[in-house]
Amino acid sequence: MEVTRKNFKEVLPEVDKAIKECCFIAIDGEFSGLDAANHSHIAPFDTHEERYGKVKKSCSDFLMFQVGICTFKYNQKTERYEARPFNFYVFPRPHSRVAPDLRFLCQASSIDFLASQGFNFNKVFLEGISYLTPEQEGNLRDVLQQKHREVSLFSSPAFTTPGTDEQAGVTKGPIHIPDEQKEFIRKNCEFIQNFMDELVKDTLNLPPSNGFQRKLLYQTIRQKFTGVHLETKTGEKKERYIVVTRVKSEDELKKKEKEKQAAEIAEIDDAVGFTQVIKMISQSGKLLLGHNMLLDIIHILHQFYYPLPNSYEDFKAMTHCAFPRIVDTKLMGSMNPFKEKIPSTGLGDLQKFLEFPPFCKPEVDLAEGFSSYNTPDQHHEAGFDAYLTGLCYISMTNYLGSLQKNASGRVSPTSSLLDPYVNKLFLMRMADAPYIDLTGPDLKLKREHVFNISFPKEWKNEDLNQLFSPFGNIQISWLNDTSAYVSLYRKEEAKNVMKTLCKDNTVYQIIRYNDHKTGNSANLRKRPMSAPDCLPPSKKQKSLNVEESSSESAAPFVSRSITPPLSDIIAPEVPSYADALKKSVKNGQSNKSKNKEVGDHGDVKMFEEPENWG
Amino acid sequence: MEVTRKNFKEVLPEVDKAIKECCFIAIDGEFSGLDAANHSHIAPFDTHEERYGKVKKSCSDFLMFQVGICTFKYNQKTERYEARPFNFYVFPRPHSRVAPDLRFLCQASSIDFLASQGFNFNKVFLEGISYLTPEQEGNLRDVLQQKHREVSLFSSPAFTTPGTDEQAGVTKGPIHIPDEQKEFIRKNCEFIQNFMDELVKDTLNLPPSNGFQRKLLYQTIRQKFTGVHLETKTGEKKERYIVVTRVKSEDELKKKEKEKQAAEIAEIDDAVGFTQVIKMISQSGKLLLGHNMLLDIIHILHQFYYPLPNSYEDFKAMTHCAFPRIVDTKLMGSMNPFKEKIPSTGLGDLQKFLEFPPFCKPEVDLAEGFSSYNTPDQHHEAGFDAYLTGLCYISMTNYLGSLQKNASGRVSPTSSLLDPYVNKLFLMRMADAPYIDLTGPDLKLKREHVFNISFPKEWKNEDLNQLFSPFGNIQISWLNDTSAYVSLYRKEEAKNVMKTLCKDNTVYQIIRYNDHKTGNSANLRKRPMSAPDCLPPSKKQKSLNVEESSSESAAPFVSRSITPPLSDIIAPEVPSYADALKKSVKNGQSNKSKNKEVGDHGDVKMFEEPENWG
Repeated sequence: MEVTRKNFKEVLPEVDKAIKECCFIAIDGEFSGLDAANHSHIAPFDTHEERYGKVKKSCSDFLMFQVGICTFKYNQKTERYEARPFNFYVFPRPHSRVAPDLRFLCQASSIDFLASQGFNFNKVFLEGISYLTPEQEGNLRDVLQQKHREVSLFSSPAFTTPGTDEQAGVTKGPIHIPDEQKEFIRKNCEFIQNFMDELVKDTLNLPPSNGFQRKLLYQTIRQKFTGVHLETKTGEKKERYIVVTRVKSEDELKKKEKEKQAAEIAEIDDAVGFTQVIKMISQSGKLLLGHNMLLDIIHILHQFYYPLPNSYEDFKAMTHCAFPRIVDTKLMGSMNPFKEKIPSTGLGDLQKFLEFPPFCKPEVDLAEGFSSYNTPDQHHEAGFDAYLTGLCYISMTNYLGSLQKNASGRVSPTSSLLDPYVNKLFLMRMADAPYIDLTGPDLKLKREHVFNISFPKEWKNEDLNQLFSPFGNIQISWLNDTSAYVSLYRKEEAKNVMKTLCKDNTVYQIIRYNDHKTGNSANLRKRPMSAPDCLPPSKKQKSLNVEESSSESAAPFVSRSITPPLSDIIAPEVPSYADALKKSVKNGQSNKSKNKEVGDHGDVKMFEEPENWG
Repeated sequence: MEVTRKNFKEVLPEVDKAIKECCFIAIDGEFSGLDAANHSHIAPFDTHEERYGKVKKSCSDFLMFQVGICTFKYNQKTERYEARPFNFYVFPRPHSRVAPDLRFLCQASSIDFLASQGFNFNKVFLEGISYLTPEQEGNLRDVLQQKHREVSLFSSPAFTTPGTDEQAGVTKGPIHIPDEQKEFIRKNCEFIQNFMDELVKDTLNLPPSNGFQRKLLYQTIRQKFTGVHLETKTGEKKERYIVVTRVKSEDELKKKEKEKQAAEIAEIDDAVGFTQVIKMISQSGKLLLGHNMLLDIIHILHQFYYPLPNSYEDFKAMTHCAFPRIVDTKLMGSMNPFKEKIPSTGLGDLQKFLEFPPFCKPEVDLAEGFSSYNTPDQHHEAGFDAYLTGLCYISMTNYLGSLQKNASGRVSPTSSLLDPYVNKLFLMRMADAPYIDLTGPDLKLKREHVFNISFPKEWKNEDLNQLFSPFGNIQISWLNDTSAYVSLYRKEEAKNVMKTLCKDNTVYQIIRYNDHKTGNSANLRKRPMSAPDCLPPSKKQKSLNVEESSSESAAPFVSRSITPPLSDIIAPEVPSYADALKKSVKNGQSNKSKNKEVGDHGDVKMFEEPENWG
C-alpha cells in the first residue's frame, strides 16, 4: 500500500493495528546516496569502529526518502502468513517558516540508478510525509509555547494579531510609502473598504504581495480600519497573502487568536508525521527484519530517532534499545546452514533460491486491501523489498524448523533456533568480520597476515604482486595513491614478510597492520628512498579501471560508489569468514558445520555485488 | 521547446543556428538549493568579496538542473522579434564507470518550492542531458587514451578483450570455484556451447551476473573456449552481463577492439552534452540577459566552464571573458528611469508592469516549432523565465529608445543607451551596493554609519533599538546570537555614536564597521562586563519570528532560505541606493534623475522579496 501525506493520517491507525497484531516486521529504505565522498568508502580492512564512522558520516548527509514496512501476521486457521506491505514516501518538507530547512546530499549514480528503476521522485518531493526527530519536535514546541506565552503577556488591544512575523520589525516609526507602492496600497484599501461595507463575507484574501508590501499593508490597514484581524497565509504555489477577517469585539479577537494557536499546535502534530510509525515499531519490541540492514538502521535512527552517537559502542546500545530483536536476512543467508546452498544473497536472488528445494516457497497471502506484489518489476520499491525480506526470513526459518527432530512447521520469532542470527548486522566487504554484534563483543580481528605498505605513487597492483610474490597470492586494499593494505592468502607466511621485505634503502616502507593501527611506528624510521630505483612501476593495471582525475580519484578496489556501478570487486582469496564460522562452531551454535570443510572460498560471499543494496 | 537527452543530439544544430542568428540571448536556471547552510546566508553588510565567497560556496554544493535559453532574432520585415525558448533538463549522469560520480546538495525548502510549482524531477533524473567541464572531459580523454595505448602495447593474443575491468585482478592464479557457483558456471558454459555449435547468431548475451560470478565466468570461458570475444555490458536496469561474440581470427578480434575503442570515444563526446551549448553562447559573444542572474552565472561557470576562482577579481575577469556583454534585467528595472515606475522587480511582476504605459507590450512571436508560452502557469520553468526576461529587456530598451530625440523603435544590443546597465550583476539584499561591476571597480562601500556590536545572548532587537534610540531609527543585521551590525538611518549621527556608547563597564562592546572589517580592534580592549546589569533584555521581539533550535537557528534578517519562505524581510530605512544613483548622475549617465528627489525610501527595492529567484 502506497502511503503519502495525502492518505497518511487515514492509514496510520491501520499501520498501528498491523504492527500490534503481527509476529514480525520487515523494513527497507531507499536513499539519495550511499557514500558521501569517494575516499570515505568502506574498505575490507576497516575496523568495526572505522566502519561505523564511515557509514554514520554518509547516512547523516544523505536522505532516506522511501521506507518500506511489511508486517507479517500468522493466521492459525489457514496456517498461512498475512503480509501487509506499506510503502511510505517521506520528505522533510519545512511545514512552517520556523521548521528546520534540511540540506541533504544526493549521489548522481544512486539517483540515476533509482531513476532507471522507475523510482518516482516527484511523489517523494510533492507528497512525501513529513517527519521530525523527537529533538526537533521538542524545540518547535518550546518555541511555540514561548511565542504563545509572550502573545498573552504583551498582546496589545489593537484589532490585529500580535506576534505575526510582520510586526517583529526593526523600525519604530511608520515606514514611508514609496511612490511606486502607493497605487498598490490604495487598491488594497479599496478592497478592504468594500469588504467592510458589504458585510457579505467574513474573510477577505488580499492579492499576493511581497514582504515589504505586506509590511506597508499592515501599517496602513491598522491606521485606517478598526475591527479587522490580519493574518499572513501561504498559498498552494507558495505565494503569501494577507487574510482580513471582520471581528466585532476584543473577545472575538481573542477567540480567533486561540484558534490560531490551536492550529499552530496541530501543525506540529502533523509535522511529526512518519516518526510516529518508527515509534510504534520501536515500542512494539517485535522482531525486526531487514536485508543488509545496517544502512537502513542507521538512517532510521538518524532521521526519526536520536542523533547518532560518536561512539561505536553507544551506537550498538542505542540500536538495541530502539529495536531489541533484529535479524538481517543477508547475514542469515550467508551463514550456515544456508551459505553453501545459496550462490547469491542479493535480495532478489535469495528470494528466488529459497523457493526451490531444499527450501520451500513460503505460504504468504497479501492482506485484503493490499495490492498484489506478484509482478516482478517492483524491485527497489522499499515496500516490495521489505515484503521479499519477510519471504526470505520465512523460508529460512521454515528450513531451520524442518531440520529439527520434532519438525512442527512454523518457527516462532522468539525461537532459540534464531539465536545465531539475532542482533547481528551484516557488514559489506569486510575481509574477515562479516557482522556487527549488537549485544556482545564483536569478532576479534586477526590481521597478523595483513601489512600496511607505502610506496611511490607510480606503483600499481603489479608492483605489489611482484614484491609479495615470495609469499603467494595477496589481496590488496588501496588506501590512497601511495599506500595500501596487503593481505596474504597463505597466513603462515606472515612471519616471513617483515624479515624479507623490511630493509634499508627501499622505495617502499612496510609495517604490520596492527602496528599501523596502533600507531606503533618503530619501523617507520626506515624512511623510503626518494628515487624509485628498484621495482620500476609497471603501469599495466592500475590505470585501466581507475579514473585519474584528482577531484574524483578513487583507488582500485575502493569502488567508487555502491548502488549501481559497483560490481567488479575482485574476490579475495583470504580465508576469513571461516574464522567466524569456527567461532560459531565453538559456541556450539551451529554444530552442523563442524564436519563441513570450510575451504579457501569461504569468504567470497563477503565481496559479492550488493545488487539489492538500497 | 523541451530538450532532454532523448532529443538533444537532434536539437543541437537548431540551438547552434538560433544562437548564431539572434540579437541577444536570455538565460535562466533552476537549482537544487540556494544557501548551503543557514549561517552562510547573504547579509546586507557583506562586502563584495564576502558576498562572492558566500554565493560561490553555495553554488558549488548545489546543482543547476534546468537551464532555460531563449534566443531573440529581429525580423526586419515584420519589425518583430522571433523568440526561441529552449528548456534544457541537465543531470550529471555518470556515463560510464570511470566518469565522475557527483554529489550534490538539495535544500528541502527549494525542492518543496519547485515541487509545488509542478517541477518535473523525474524528467531531470531520468532524461537530463549529461555534461562535463572541459577539465573533466580532458581527464577522461587522457585516461581513455592511456588505456587504448596500453591495450595495444600489452594486448595478449588470447581471444578475449584485454583491459576489461574483470581482468585487472589482484590474484594471479585461477580462483577456486565455490560449490554454490558451480551450477551457475555450468549452465553458462552450456549456453555458450550451444551458441558456438549452432552458428545462428553472432553474439550471445549471458544472464545477468554479479562481479564475482563474472570473474569466474571470464576465467572459465577462457579455459574452455577459443574464438570468442567477451565484453561486459550494462542493461537498462543497470544489470551487468557478459556478451559473447564469435570471432574467427586475430584480425577480427583487433577490428572488434577498434570498434570498441571508437565507441568509448563517442561515449565521451556524448557525455560533454550540454556543455556544448554554453560553449556556443560564450563563443557567440552575444549580449546575454538574465534576471537576478548572479547565481545563474556562477552555476554556469562552475558546472560547464572552469573551476570558480577563489579571488573575487579573478571571478569578475573570468565572467567577462566567458560572457563579454551581460545585462541583468532586475538591476535594469531597479535603476533609472525604470525604478520609480515599477513597484516590484520580481520577474513576473516586472514583465506585467512593462506591458502597460508608459511602457509598451513588446512585439514578439514564438518561432515556428516552439509551443506557446501564453499560459500563465509556467513560471519557474527555466525556458519560460528566460523568455520573460527577454520580454522585459525589449520593453525597457524600447522605452529607453522612445525617450531619445530621434526615437526610431528598436534599440540595438550594442547601443550606448545600454551602457549604464551593461556588465553589472544585481546583488540581493545589499544595504548599499546594488551590483557587481564586472568591468570596473565596484561602488565604494561607505559604512561610517555602521557599527559592530557584541552583547549578551539574551538581547533582542528591542535592546538594540533602545541602546541606539538617541540616534534615531536603525537597521539591524544579526551576525549571530551575540553580535550584529547596526546601521543608522540618520548618517549624520554617526560621529556621536562612539562618543556616547563606547564606555567602560558596559555589557555590550561596540566598534566601527570599518575597524571591525580591518581587524582594528583598538576599542576591543573595553571588554564587556560579564553580568547583564544594564539594559535588561526584553524578550519581546526576537523569539517571535526566530527559531531557537541551535542546529537550525537563524538570526532575524538573515532569512533562513531564499526560494520560497523568504519574505518578511523588513525594509530598512537607510538611504543607500541613492548613493549609487548619485554616482550614476555624476557620470552623466542618467541625467533624468538629477532633479528627482531620492527620498529615504530609495533603498527599499534592495530588500524586496525575490519571488522570481530561481
